[in-house]
Order: sequence, then structure tokens, then C-alpha cells
Amino acid sequence: MTTTANVTTAPAREWTPLTEAGRDHLWMHFSRMAPLQEKPMRVIDHAEGVHLFDDRGQRILDGLSGLFVVQAGHGREELAEAAAAQAKKLAYFPAWGIATQPVIELAERLAHEAPGSLNRVFFTSGGGEAVESAWKVAKQYFKLTGKPMKHKVISRTAAYHGTTQGALAITGLPLMKQAFEPLTPGGFRAANTDFYRAPEHGDDLLAFGLWAANRIEEAILQEGPDTVAAVVLEPVQNSGGCFTPPPGYFARVREICDRYDVLLVSDEVICAFGRHGTTFACEKFGYEPDIITCAKGMSSGYGPIGAMIANERVMEPFLEGKNFFPHGYTFGGHPVSAAVSLVNLDIFEREGLNQRVLDNEAAFGATLGKLLDLPIVGDVRGDGYFWGIELVKDKASKQTFDAAEREFLIKQHLPDALMDNGLYCRPDDRVNPVIQLAPPLISGQAEFDEIEQIIRHTLQDVAALL
Amino acid sequence: MTTTANVTTAPAREWTPLTEAGRDHLWMHFSRMAPLQEKPMRVIDHAEGVHLFDDRGQRILDGLSGLFVVQAGHGREELAEAAAAQAKKLAYFPAWGIATQPVIELAERLAHEAPGSLNRVFFTSGGGEAVESAWKVAKQYFKLTGKPMKHKVISRTAAYHGTTQGALAITGLPLMKQAFEPLTPGGFRAANTDFYRAPEHGDDLLAFGLWAANRIEEAILQEGPDTVAAVVLEPVQNSGGCFTPPPGYFARVREICDRYDVLLVSDEVICAFGRHGTTFACEKFGYEPDIITCAKGMSSGYGPIGAMIANERVMEPFLEGKNFFPHGYTFGGHPVSAAVSLVNLDIFEREGLNQRVLDNEAAFGATLGKLLDLPIVGDVRGDGYFWGIELVKDKASKQTFDAAEREFLIKQHLPDALMDNGLYCRPDDRVNPVIQLAPPLISGQAEFDEIEQIIRHTLQDVAALL
Repeated sequence: MTTTANVTTAPAREWTPLTEAGRDHLWMHFSRMAPLQEKPMRVIDHAEGVHLFDDRGQRILDGLSGLFVVQAGHGREELAEAAAAQAKKLAYFPAWGIATQPVIELAERLAHEAPGSLNRVFFTSGGGEAVESAWKVAKQYFKLTGKPMKHKVISRTAAYHGTTQGALAITGLPLMKQAFEPLTPGGFRAANTDFYRAPEHGDDLLAFGLWAANRIEEAILQEGPDTVAAVVLEPVQNSGGCFTPPPGYFARVREICDRYDVLLVSDEVICAFGRHGTTFACEKFGYEPDIITCAKGMSSGYGPIGAMIANERVMEPFLEGKNFFPHGYTFGGHPVSAAVSLVNLDIFEREGLNQRVLDNEAAFGATLGKLLDLPIVGDVRGDGYFWGIELVKDKASKQTFDAAEREFLIKQHLPDALMDNGLYCRPDDRVNPVIQLAPPLISGQAEFDEIEQIIRHTLQDVAALL
Repeated sequence: MTTTANVTTAPAREWTPLTEAGRDHLWMHFSRMAPLQEKPMRVIDHAEGVHLFDDRGQRILDGLSGLFVVQAGHGREELAEAAAAQAKKLAYFPAWGIATQPVIELAERLAHEAPGSLNRVFFTSGGGEAVESAWKVAKQYFKLTGKPMKHKVISRTAAYHGTTQGALAITGLPLMKQAFEPLTPGGFRAANTDFYRAPEHGDDLLAFGLWAANRIEEAILQEGPDTVAAVVLEPVQNSGGCFTPPPGYFARVREICDRYDVLLVSDEVICAFGRHGTTFACEKFGYEPDIITCAKGMSSGYGPIGAMIANERVMEPFLEGKNFFPHGYTFGGHPVSAAVSLVNLDIFEREGLNQRVLDNEAAFGATLGKLLDLPIVGDVRGDGYFWGIELVKDKASKQTFDAAEREFLIKQHLPDALMDNGLYCRPDDRVNPVIQLAPPLISGQAEFDEIEQIIRHTLQDVAALL
């Protein structure tokens, strides 16, 4: 097999006291556990810049920023020192009526970066909690303002918004939900912006965008506008493989939300903090939501933190008399995570990470676009440093793989094969089979080329096995 | 007003750029926002050992460990350095199929500390996510083992289990929930162990405990055992003010769960990690649950982390074939938080913190018990370093305060008055008015005395105002 020059050869994994302990005690997320009982798990030992190093000494390019998280790259001593300094000064105090300095400063900074009157920051421990906060605040907002029946949420087919049982009810992936139903009532779905598989207007992006936005209006009308509190959308939808918004899409969605008095929530847990070259992705795509939910990249993952950022309209009834939002999280607005986030945002400014993404996004897309010469690559789509590659059985008809082929491709072969070849990224078939990429924002053409080469060789190899 | 010698005088709060930023941008948890718009918020600047220091230089005894979190005390350089070292080595990688060293080691350590076959550790970012994980795993467990109708949860009146819309459905506080209903279906309530206000057997603790446990059986039978998946209980219930389990209570609850094939979940988010003198509180109270949920004290709050720890019975069907738990959190099992937790548990061992609590808990209770000579103190109850003081209008009849009095006492007067007098703790009237205490585990008789003195003087002052 051909590999790129940079890739070290991966020795066979062996049982060690560490991997045995992992087998016996660590219940991993979203993971089949049977294979992990039989074969030693891979352990990431350390990381530097854009590279991960595993327990066998293999160097692996981090093509996913951990999990859309490590925007500023690994091994930033400055962030580690910021964490230690704050932990020594004040490691923990809750955000319940009494404040801490880094939490106030981060709230001010986020409010300054957010568009319009999105000035009010409610901190959480991560993204799912931010989505829960947004839905809950929308429910209470309308009860406080005389429309108590408005409590439902419209989100999109296949979209992922979290796993707690409110956020999960907003999520549009049946296989994520079916074992846990009934979930929180009130989650309803409309079409997403999968233009590659557009059921209508597949030859006209603008018309498709309008059609897709109107599906949200349709859902609001189906449920009854007097019962709908919010529309929750990612700027670029992750699950399914980087569904970007067609031009005009969000303008029309905003119009629909205004018409039916529905709050527009921009779920930017993945898309914020430079993933698309702006602090908040709604700026990139030209719309102003009522609420932004964000997390991951805020601290570049050096400390768990998330936020719901609301505009003054949403805040207003909560500023009256004895009203309050009976909601919170012990670790929401953790002082150490907040201090780290402030330094992370300093790095963004000092190194011009947002501009770097804007300058390089076209080159990243063009480099990945070379893969379209492979018969298995049906589509390459994305924006900023967030791209998806859809794999197909037949490019002309866009026919996708059957269950057995997907099992082989996505579950059994590609994750290990790509990592053995030196690339960590995300093969995913929650919808159709895709490979997703979201490298640290410090990446450039050298990394784009390496990503393209490793995927190319890995897909060439796998084509022979299918 | 009489104050203890240690208390510095608090100057009036003034607007500063920091408090103005807080007013304009920080949406605080569980807090009325109107007063925070009108009066500068208190800002905790730094902390050391058992003391907080605010932005006006006032020293305040931390009688709540932040929020039942900072077990090992503030300002531990060792924990700060552990965070920095791990952040430099590997700040972030998810726990999705590939592992990191600190996360495996912490899983092994927790499994070793947990009773019986509770060997499988699923990490979360905090306590609410752990409760969501426990309910979701219980739902799926019974679907995988041929009892697909079992999905409901029985919890207790007034108990708090989290704010995401699954955990919130388990929570027994109507005022926390009413603005957000409908929540996840399936949460049902049974009586708690409030012996001070026992509706029956108020003169016989053993009989009351048996009665209270049998209310859980009653709830299971009311809903139908074939539909109930789990009973979720705190070892000592926080909300309401430290309701301890009567002798025999948990033995009877375990018997009921076994009889109806219902999983027993011990929600130890507050009670674990030494709060009662043992790593897990179920050990202190002599029962073996199927699942433990924990968070807060795991890292002494130096990094956000939580866990659901399941026994081998729960794990078993998830080890088969392609089965998996489609659940996870980006920041669940954060490497930095895990590394910090390992060092925190080292401190527990090296300094004998659990034994310290066992040695001192009676003295803490006896010192607080002195307050029973005040007419306003109706009950002092608790265990370990976790105590509640119930305030009453009339001690003989146990008459509680009316709404206006509670508003004055708990919402307006006591939180500030206690802090101005040098003590941070928790006045709470989610049920009846209580003052709750949970100091860092490094506390001793000097702190117990200071707590007692400050509460005594503050309550003497407030009695004159009522």
C-alpha cells in the first residue's frame, strides 16, 4: 500500500495494563463495546500543534480538531498556564447570583463579538446544555410575554443538537433517539439543505434554498404558530456531512420566524469560533438570530465551557420584578474554563485565526475537490475549515451503499485505516456515508495536501476491497 | 451588631467597570436579574483553603464548598499544576472509541472505589449529564433485555436531580419545572425522608423509614412495575435540607427494586467524594446500587467532570455484538479534568480526608446543634460534612413562615447578611426555609465554631426584624 512520506508504520496494538484497564472500566461514548473487549483500544498519548501521537508512537494528523474543538491547536502552553493561574487564584465558584472576574470578562467579550443586541450570556458546561438552555428560555419567554402555548421547536432532518433528553428531542436522527423515547414533547422536523440530494430544484441552488426555508414555514403552520417557540438551526449542518445554507436561505428563515413570532436559535456549537472564519457563523452567513448556542471552540477545548447568548428582547421579561430563569449548571461558567477562553480569544486576535480561515478556505475546498476524480467520491462540500466528502457506490446515479457495505466502510474499515495511514477525521453514516474534516485553524496548505493524499490512498485501497 | 473577631467590615458595594459589565452581559443562574441591574454584584476574587475573598477584600468562610464541590479546599497548587501539565501534554480528545491515559486511569480508580460490580464508568461533564445518562441507559437496558416497556423513573418529593429536560423531569420541585413543561414523560414521585415533618410515624424513626421506603413500592405499583426502569435517590437528599435515610431505609428500597426488577440509581452528585466520609455515600449508608451518578467533588471542582458508574449487570447487554449506547458528550471525560481528579483522589488518600470527616462529623453536628437554643431554629439535621438548619416561626408547633416572611428571610436578607458577616452558605426555601452547610473537608472545629457563631448572630439579628 502507498502511504505518504510523513506516515510512520503502525505496529500491531498489544494489551498493556492501561488498555486492559480501559477494556474493563471505561464505557466509551457512542461506541460499540464488544470490539473494544477483544482488541486493545487506541490511546492518544500527547499532541502538538496539528498532530496527535498515540501510545505506539504513531503521529496522526488531527483532521477533526479533536471533535470540532481544538481551534488553536494542541499543546498551547499559554492556555495551560492560564488554566493553572486561575486554578491557583480561584478554581471554582458557581455563577449563581455572585460572580467571578473571568466569567464577567468572558461574558462581555462574547457579547461584544456577537451581532446586534445579543448581549446576554448564560454559561453552561458545553453545547448540549446550551441547547437545553435555549429551548427552556424560549418556553419561559413566551409564558412571561403572554403567549403561554408557544413551546415547540422546529429543527431539521438529521440535525444533531445534543444527547440530554431535551436537546435529543430537537435532534433529527431517529437511531439516536429510538431507545430513549418518549423524549421531551415538542420537537418537530423540517427539511435540511442537502442540495446534493435535493428532492426538488436540484439544478437551482437559489430555488432550492427558498424551497428548504419554506419547509420551516410549513412545519410551523402544521404545528400551529401559536404553539411554536423556536426554530433551532446550525449555520452549516454537521450531521449528514456539512450541509451549507444556500444564498438567501437564512434571510428567508429570519423572515418566517419574524412573521410567526418564533425565536431563531443559531446552534453554533460547531460553527462558532473561527470554524467559518468569523467568531460567530451567523455573521459569515449574514443573519441575526435571537439566540446563539456555542461551546467547543470557545476554549479550544482546554476547558469545558459553553454558552447561550440571548438578545435584549429575550432578556427583557427576565429583568422584571421577581421574574427569574430557574435554570443553571454547577459547572456552567467555570472560572478556569472562562480564563482559558479569554486567552484563547486573545490568540485568535493575535494570530488572526479568523482571517486565516477566510484566506485559506477556498484552497482547502479546492484541495479536497481533487478527490472528486475518485469514483467513490460523490460530493465535496463545506465552508471555512469544515468540509464533508460524501462516498457513493455510483457517481452518476448518486446511488449510496447498502447496509452491509456501510457497515464495512464506515464502522469497520475506514476509521482505523485512516488513522493507521496518519489521519484522524470522522467517517460517519448517520445519514449517507461521509468523511468529515475540521482541522485546527492553524492548518494550511501543507495539512490540506496531507489530508487529501491520505484520504485518496485510503479510498483507493478500500475501493479494491468493496 | 455583634460579629465574630474574624469578620472584616464590609464597605458598600460600588459600580466598577467589572460590575457594570456583569450587569450588562452576565445572565446568572437561578437568579433574579432585576436586583443585579440595580446594585453592583458581589465578585469573588480569589480563595485559599476554606476562605473566599471578594472584590472588596472581605474574607468569607466558604461554608458550601462553592456548591458542594471544593472538597479539598481552595488554592491547591498541586491541582493547578496537574491541570497545566495535562493541558500541555494533551488538553482535549473525546472519549469516543479512542482513549486517553488520564481518562482510563480515572475510570479504573473510580471502579476500584465503587462497591460490588460497579466497574463501568461513563464520563460526563457534570452531574445533570450523569443523571441523564443513567435514565437513558436504564431505558435502553430494558429494551435490550426483553422488557421494552420499562422506561419510567421514581424519584422523591422535592429532590433535585438536574436541569436538562430529562434530569428535570426526575426532579421533584414543581417551581423548577412549571415554565418548561411538558418535560420528558415518565418521571413520578414518592415521599422523601423528611422525618422532622413526618406525616406518619413521627415518633419512630425506624417505622418512618420503612413507611417512606414503602411509598416507593407504592409508586412502582401505581405506575405498573412492567413500565418502571429505575428508582433515583440521593443518599442524603439535598433539597429540603439534608434529609438523611433512616436506618433500614435503603435495605428496604434495595429489596423493593429487586422485587420489581427496577434499577437502583444512587445520585451521589453531592454526596460522593468524602461528603459523608466515604468515597461513595452508598458505602456509608450500607447499600449497593446498580448505578452511581457523581460529579462535583470528583475534581474538587478544579475541572468540570462527572460520571455514571454502572454495574456489570447493566453493562452486559451493551457488550454484545453491534449493541451500543448511542450517547455521549463532547466534554465528557475531559483529559484535563480527569488528570486533576486523579491528583484530587491522591490528596484524599494522602491527607485522609474521608477519615477526617468520619472523625469530625459528630462534632460538626454537635456544634451546629447548639443553635437549637434559638427560637427560630426548628431542626438541625445531616451527616458527615453536610448539614441543614430548618428555620421555623414557632418551634413547638413547627409552624413555618408565610410567603412574605420567606421572601424577606431567604430571598432578601439572609444571603447578603450571612456573607457580610463572613459566611457563605445556602439559605434555601425550595421546600421549607433552611440554611445548608457543606464546608470543605479540610475544615475542623475552628471552622465549625465560626460557622455556628456567624449563623447565631445573623439569626439573632434577623429575629428582631421579623
